[in-house]
Amino acid sequence: MLSSHHCLVSEMGFAKKEYEFLSEIGLGPDNPGGFINGKWKASGPVISTVNPSNNQQIAKVTEVSIEDYEEGLRACNEAAKTWKSLPAPKRGEIVRQIGDALREKLQHLGRLVSLEMGKILAEGIGEVQEVIDMCDYAVGLSRQLNGSIVPSERPNHMMFEVWNPLGVVGVITAFNFPCAVLGWNACIALVCGNCVVWKGAPTTPLVTIAVTKLVAEVGSKVQKIVNERFGKCLLELSGNNAIIVMDDANIGLAVRSILFAAVGTAGQRCTTCRRLYLHESIYQSVLDQLVGLYKQVKIGDPLEKGTLVGPVHTQASRENFEKGISTIKSQGGKILTGGSVMESDGNFVQPTIVEISSDASVVKEELFGPVLYVMKIKTLEEAIELNNSVPQGLSSSVFTSKPETIFKWIGPHGSDCGIVNVNIPTNGAEIGGAFGGEKATGGGREAGSDSWKQYMRRSTCTINYGSELPLAQGINFG
Amino acid sequence: MLSSHHCLVSEMGFAKKEYEFLSEIGLGPDNPGGFINGKWKASGPVISTVNPSNNQQIAKVTEVSIEDYEEGLRACNEAAKTWKSLPAPKRGEIVRQIGDALREKLQHLGRLVSLEMGKILAEGIGEVQEVIDMCDYAVGLSRQLNGSIVPSERPNHMMFEVWNPLGVVGVITAFNFPCAVLGWNACIALVCGNCVVWKGAPTTPLVTIAVTKLVAEVGSKVQKIVNERFGKCLLELSGNNAIIVMDDANIGLAVRSILFAAVGTAGQRCTTCRRLYLHESIYQSVLDQLVGLYKQVKIGDPLEKGTLVGPVHTQASRENFEKGISTIKSQGGKILTGGSVMESDGNFVQPTIVEISSDASVVKEELFGPVLYVMKIKTLEEAIELNNSVPQGLSSSVFTSKPETIFKWIGPHGSDCGIVNVNIPTNGAEIGGAFGGEKATGGGREAGSDSWKQYMRRSTCTINYGSELPLAQGINFG
Amino acid sequence: MLSSHHCLVSEMGFAKKEYEFLSEIGLGPDNPGGFINGKWKASGPVISTVNPSNNQQIAKVTEVSIEDYEEGLRACNEAAKTWKSLPAPKRGEIVRQIGDALREKLQHLGRLVSLEMGKILAEGIGEVQEVIDMCDYAVGLSRQLNGSIVPSERPNHMMFEVWNPLGVVGVITAFNFPCAVLGWNACIALVCGNCVVWKGAPTTPLVTIAVTKLVAEVGSKVQKIVNERFGKCLLELSGNNAIIVMDDANIGLAVRSILFAAVGTAGQRCTTCRRLYLHESIYQSVLDQLVGLYKQVKIGDPLEKGTLVGPVHTQASRENFEKGISTIKSQGGKILTGGSVMESDGNFVQPTIVEISSDASVVKEELFGPVLYVMKIKTLEEAIELNNSVPQGLSSSVFTSKPETIFKWIGPHGSDCGIVNVNIPTNGAEIGGAFGGEKATGGGREAGSDSWKQYMRRSTCTINYGSELPLAQGINFG
Amino acid sequence: MLSSHHCLVSEMGFAKKEYEFLSEIGLGPDNPGGFINGKWKASGPVISTVNPSNNQQIAKVTEVSIEDYEEGLRACNEAAKTWKSLPAPKRGEIVRQIGDALREKLQHLGRLVSLEMGKILAEGIGEVQEVIDMCDYAVGLSRQLNGSIVPSERPNHMMFEVWNPLGVVGVITAFNFPCAVLGWNACIALVCGNCVVWKGAPTTPLVTIAVTKLVAEVGSKVQKIVNERFGKCLLELSGNNAIIVMDDANIGLAVRSILFAAVGTAGQRCTTCRRLYLHESIYQSVLDQLVGLYKQVKIGDPLEKGTLVGPVHTQASRENFEKGISTIKSQGGKILTGGSVMESDGNFVQPTIVEISSDASVVKEELFGPVLYVMKIKTLEEAIELNNSVPQGLSSSVFTSKPETIFKWIGPHGSDCGIVNVNIPTNGAEIGGAFGGEKATGGGREAGSDSWKQYMRRSTCTINYGSELPLAQGINFG
Repeated sequence: MLSSHHCLVSEMGFAKKEYEFLSEIGLGPDNPGGFINGKWKASGPVISTVNPSNNQQIAKVTEVSIEDYEEGLRACNEAAKTWKSLPAPKRGEIVRQIGDALREKLQHLGRLVSLEMGKILAEGIGEVQEVIDMCDYAVGLSRQLNGSIVPSERPNHMMFEVWNPLGVVGVITAFNFPCAVLGWNACIALVCGNCVVWKGAPTTPLVTIAVTKLVAEVGSKVQKIVNERFGKCLLELSGNNAIIVMDDANIGLAVRSILFAAVGTAGQRCTTCRRLYLHESIYQSVLDQLVGLYKQVKIGDPLEKGTLVGPVHTQASRENFEKGISTIKSQGGKILTGGSVMESDGNFVQPTIVEISSDASVVKEELFGPVLYVMKIKTLEEAIELNNSVPQGLSSSVFTSKPETIFKWIGPHGSDCGIVNVNIPTNGAEIGGAFGGEKATGGGREAGSDSWKQYMRRSTCTINYGSELPLAQGINFG
Repeated sequence: MLSSHHCLVSEMGFAKKEYEFLSEIGLGPDNPGGFINGKWKASGPVISTVNPSNNQQIAKVTEVSIEDYEEGLRACNEAAKTWKSLPAPKRGEIVRQIGDALREKLQHLGRLVSLEMGKILAEGIGEVQEVIDMCDYAVGLSRQLNGSIVPSERPNHMMFEVWNPLGVVGVITAFNFPCAVLGWNACIALVCGNCVVWKGAPTTPLVTIAVTKLVAEVGSKVQKIVNERFGKCLLELSGNNAIIVMDDANIGLAVRSILFAAVGTAGQRCTTCRRLYLHESIYQSVLDQLVGLYKQVKIGDPLEKGTLVGPVHTQASRENFEKGISTIKSQGGKILTGGSVMESDGNFVQPTIVEISSDASVVKEELFGPVLYVMKIKTLEEAIELNNSVPQGLSSSVFTSKPETIFKWIGPHGSDCGIVNVNIPTNGAEIGGAFGGEKATGGGREAGSDSWKQYMRRSTCTINYGSELPLAQGINFG
Repeated sequence: MLSSHHCLVSEMGFAKKEYEFLSEIGLGPDNPGGFINGKWKASGPVISTVNPSNNQQIAKVTEVSIEDYEEGLRACNEAAKTWKSLPAPKRGEIVRQIGDALREKLQHLGRLVSLEMGKILAEGIGEVQEVIDMCDYAVGLSRQLNGSIVPSERPNHMMFEVWNPLGVVGVITAFNFPCAVLGWNACIALVCGNCVVWKGAPTTPLVTIAVTKLVAEVGSKVQKIVNERFGKCLLELSGNNAIIVMDDANIGLAVRSILFAAVGTAGQRCTTCRRLYLHESIYQSVLDQLVGLYKQVKIGDPLEKGTLVGPVHTQASRENFEKGISTIKSQGGKILTGGSVMESDGNFVQPTIVEISSDASVVKEELFGPVLYVMKIKTLEEAIELNNSVPQGLSSSVFTSKPETIFKWIGPHGSDCGIVNVNIPTNGAEIGGAFGGEKATGGGREAGSDSWKQYMRRSTCTINYGSELPLAQGINFG
Repeated sequence: MLSSHHCLVSEMGFAKKEYEFLSEIGLGPDNPGGFINGKWKASGPVISTVNPSNNQQIAKVTEVSIEDYEEGLRACNEAAKTWKSLPAPKRGEIVRQIGDALREKLQHLGRLVSLEMGKILAEGIGEVQEVIDMCDYAVGLSRQLNGSIVPSERPNHMMFEVWNPLGVVGVITAFNFPCAVLGWNACIALVCGNCVVWKGAPTTPLVTIAVTKLVAEVGSKVQKIVNERFGKCLLELSGNNAIIVMDDANIGLAVRSILFAAVGTAGQRCTTCRRLYLHESIYQSVLDQLVGLYKQVKIGDPLEKGTLVGPVHTQASRENFEKGISTIKSQGGKILTGGSVMESDGNFVQPTIVEISSDASVVKEELFGPVLYVMKIKTLEEAIELNNSVPQGLSSSVFTSKPETIFKWIGPHGSDCGIVNVNIPTNGAEIGGAFGGEKATGGGREAGSDSWKQYMRRSTCTINYGSELPLAQGINFG
């Protein structure tokens, strides 16, 4: 069912005792990075995967070669023929078993996500839980991939709208959610009748391999991999998400939400809050509270209890942060707190608040770290206009206690994002809703609602079961 | 609401008495081609629109200039702000009035479509009827553009899926359906809360102008025009549609369907049948019947009673037909009937049947005229594989009396087209179903089902109305 | 399509010149009350229909006999066979024509509703408009009566959920909405494929006959009548609807809403507000404003401009009002304004406000006139408990500006009614939503949403198109 | 969560060694029959539960008293308040755990169903599997109990259709499906937010108790019981189901289906086939094959491998069979095979085929055992008329290979049953479809599709978030 770019040359035992839990989820110090036609296999270069808290090696992984990949593709296309013949509820039963296998290893997998990606343990476990939730959700869905029977204007005719599988679906995931995004896509794609080719992020190969091992042990029917060219493309690109706080907001709720939205996952979610619009009447008071909180936030080893901010994912991320701060300053941004990288072997940076003009061009771009731009607004209309003024359109929140504001915000004159929240942070979506955004964000939708339709092709079928040939719109011909 | 590329310099009266009915639908011998900010206006070059049956001028049209277009865009963006504020059922009421205005002029408009495009009168009237049907359909839809309320996993939270208008929608239509495709798109786009910019085909400006005049008289609220860059793109590209006739088919039904599908509209529908797969056991018999019918088909003035095949739309189309026949011959195709253009001032060509190998490369391309390729098949599986072997995926039909064949054909191992028919032709869709195709055909859907969602943007809204901040997936933060 | 209990013996001309507009909608001084098998016919007793503003005769009507009724039933059962064979969109086209016929006579029909029922002209016209809206809505619906295609757990099986017509549907309507309730039911029942038997209220026969005439002229295909025993029963029974005003409400909006909800249609809607719960902090102020407004309300001829309260419908209604006031007093109710019938030939009563304990038993009953009980509340929870404490469960409103209150009110711990409003009156529903109530109100739903399913029977169809016999749940048998 | 009428006075050990597996699922020789407010408790009379294969006692059960019942009701109403506050996906998680607990004991529970009810082991296990399937299905559903957001015709208004729990739901199940019917209802009722009171059949108390124990161990949050008076009633009453075999049917498929449908579960399913309509051209041949098969069917201990027909459930059932055969004979029925009870301590009867006139009145009634009436038909129309001529309307099947027959059968002129099958037996439904029937069968629907709506109450909510008061239908008031 899946693959990765990475693999190993063997050694004895893990470098550190604290990594030994990895053997519980099928990992060793050296790991082949491809699961191809039911076998672990990889003949490409060997790489190291590192702990972003200290940039030291966790384990080695051998990447797959082009030949490995092509072999996998062939096998997967073969497997697709039988998988789509299996009734959907039977496919759902297999996805249920995958969920159960993940549930059994929830703690270990969550720990691995935290270790290799750098997010705090609560978030690592939460991410694996999200994959499990998706499995459970997809089981019920496998009996509800309903087509429609549409009344025909012609006698003795029936119109059907039928949904059929696409065949093979490719999922390419990024480092910041090394398994949740697979879960959103693969669970639904599988019950829809597709085979799935997974390419995980180059810097989180252990998560990719561990999840694949669990799936492979269980789902002997889904063990193939591949792909060629995809007919459909579902993109989730960047976000540049804003929170608006109105004068009538519950300020305590707003401040805690902003903190989670801006520094959670070290600012590396596509739904991280990067822009904060504060009503002028509460501007200074909210800002003071935020700066106070930022100074107390515990930064450090994500696996340690109490840590709220772990390292950014790679050394390159840390360098990118430094460059970003320099650009911000050159555009007139005023650093209220943070603004530096930290002295450490790991990739730690300070959560940062910047006071800046909404005209500054950096505000329109996504800096992938814990940097928050704060701006002052006078009216809801002004705030909505600024919210909508960036190229991205993923997530957005307003804090308010007025129904007028709520319904304006979610209506035709409101936020133009795909995710429009009220009194909660921009990040932390539930799987039951559709996840995704408009404009430069890509337009796709994942997880709940009718997102499953993106994994299927639709046919409008008209069946004439009579012996006459009436034409639509009452046309006579011949 | 709409515009065209074309316009006039004034003269006295129509060239022919038979064109005088055009004054009943607001047309004169000279016509400005742009309806901009509520006024008819055009300052570009003057062109002639011609009758494809004789290539003589019907009337003159002045095209819009770039400046006209930009003025229109600005006006339309302004209008969009108020149009989307109008409640959807009120927008529906205006679309109902448009439908009534078209209904009153059905005969005249249908005659104009036939005259300017070249399709037979029954089809011209049928096309206008389709726009009227869409108006009626959209009225009910204006009370059913439903979002969803989704159960949240967090206490005191509600999730909404809300649909909001896109703003301005552009519709570019082709000559072969000079008004129906506008109807599919504009009726739904309007009730969804969008303004519409219409660019009709360069060779059917009178239809564009006449329909716009009727809409403009009625819908004083929708009279603006424009566009800039569209965030979404809904494409309907080419088709290369096959009919399969199995040994157990009702042959009479099949033969009449093939005739309509292959020669109707002189083979210029995107759903025209271009490939015919006949089971070997009925191959010769069906072919004999078809060749017999082709020889009797009346070709001529589309407005005359009894005509089944009018001219192709332009002189360029006729030349394209000639080139196509020559390529067919060079690839081993055997002309069983037809194969020539006709001696005439008009653009008449002979409906043509070609016996050819399914390996010939011309079979994979769309020749936009009345040319049908016939091939022999032995099994349903072989036929489906051939049906699916072209880059396009719009429409397809099987003729059979076996339930196994029907359900296999519409299932995961069946046709990969967007329109999958049984015992009816490939062309002649009803508006209640979704219209469109997969693969190179583009993937969009128009008219019925949930096609309206393509004209709106979707927000997943989560509202926290309590005073706590529980996180999704049970995450603890801080 | 419909019938009534009433009919005529002929005379010359109408008694008053102001009734002559009735001839424009097909009525005369004497009218046969049954439309049976395509003919107007009635052989029962002759009755008079009277103007409730003066209790004088408007016209005479001959009622149908039992034999007439049975003849009608037979004809209708015959007609049902062909009506259900007509494709649904074709049925929709006929309903569209009915809507157009009503639209043309909107002013006259509205005037007749006002004259014969006694509601003010704006409401009479609004009621006919609602029937027209239902027709427009049903046209679109006729292409959306969708069944479902459900994934089967068995290979080579398909499951369908198919909706088929019931056959003949009977609609019995009450005097207070002499045509709107027919519209809710008949428009949907007809596009669903049913024939409709209508029995209008005994005291509004002219509305019944006039609407039937308009339908009969147009819909030559739907002109039959009948029924026997209905398999399904959709009841709309009594309401006893409350408005709650919280301390944070927009008081101006609340006061105007209460006035419309309590005295509109002289308190004779099933959605009329009969109970008013005011938060203690705004209790006296709201009450003072209401009493002031009640004293200024213009009572009189409903056809006169400026009138807000017409007569109650019959002399019996007036007597019932008097009895009710007497019971109220005996249970400790204090009349703040109104409380008497008026000196007049017509059935006029005073709009009345009563201060009373929420324990009084009259508060749990529906007094069908303009009587409003006012009670004091301290918390939202108390108000919801009182709102839910009556046997009826039709409509309810809260006035508030707090999101917490809104979402609690519409949630599992909120109002138990079928109609749950915020910041609008209890009456005045739109057709796009489902109309109806829970508990003693009956549980049925009319008009929008999926109410159409109540007019159809549902089949779960499983089709095995393979040649094996796998059993559900994987059972082996034999 | 549930209760039963039955209970125990203690003894030492089970009477037979083969019953010892019961201790694995929490049963002993003496069992209290009520689970009330989290405790096992019962103070009513003691009864015995017997094995229908030999009428000997399996174990003893103490029934609950009226006082026990009332205590349970009070506790359940209390519990309902907190259960409905739990977010739906959290309720889904608990139902998932219930499914897992049942899955672990699948073999034992299936064995108990077979032992106590008398159906063969494959069916006993299949029945428990169906409960498990329902649990899995309900988990996904818990995120899809969607309301709607409906466009309002009034500016600054939103209409919602919201679904809220009913509160407490009572489920009374019959002996023939001692746990599956609980599963259909309880799984959905629970995720919908209701508490459930279960009263199992008096003759299958051990199944009731064992399932309750498994649920109680797991779902500490759902352990209360009760009920009072239900606002809604969902009835599944009798069936009298027909199979039609046309001349073009796959006869092998038809014969095996009839055997399973008529003798499976010893003819004690509500979906058992009781009427067989054979086309005259294949009448004798099908009948000969059936009689041959009936004579070979193995009757005996349902737990034994190879048995196809176990005992009927009680001695009363056996007597009822004898009376039925006598009535059949008195009405002219001719016994082709079977027709007698068997010499045995158990309740065994012979599977019976009767040739009879379709006018005989017994044919319209449901004889709850393995008796099949066979009749001859000439046309599909005649067969459909006979199929529809009984008061019941649950299930029905046609065997055919013609599309015309299939689509006529499922259309407006076809079967009037709730379950309409093609080429499969009348029994053996999947959970993904809606289960239930029309006419005297009751009209309710259980399991899949939108059946969940029967467990909730619907509110149409309109929210005015502006400061104006526009009225629906454009009415002006005051």
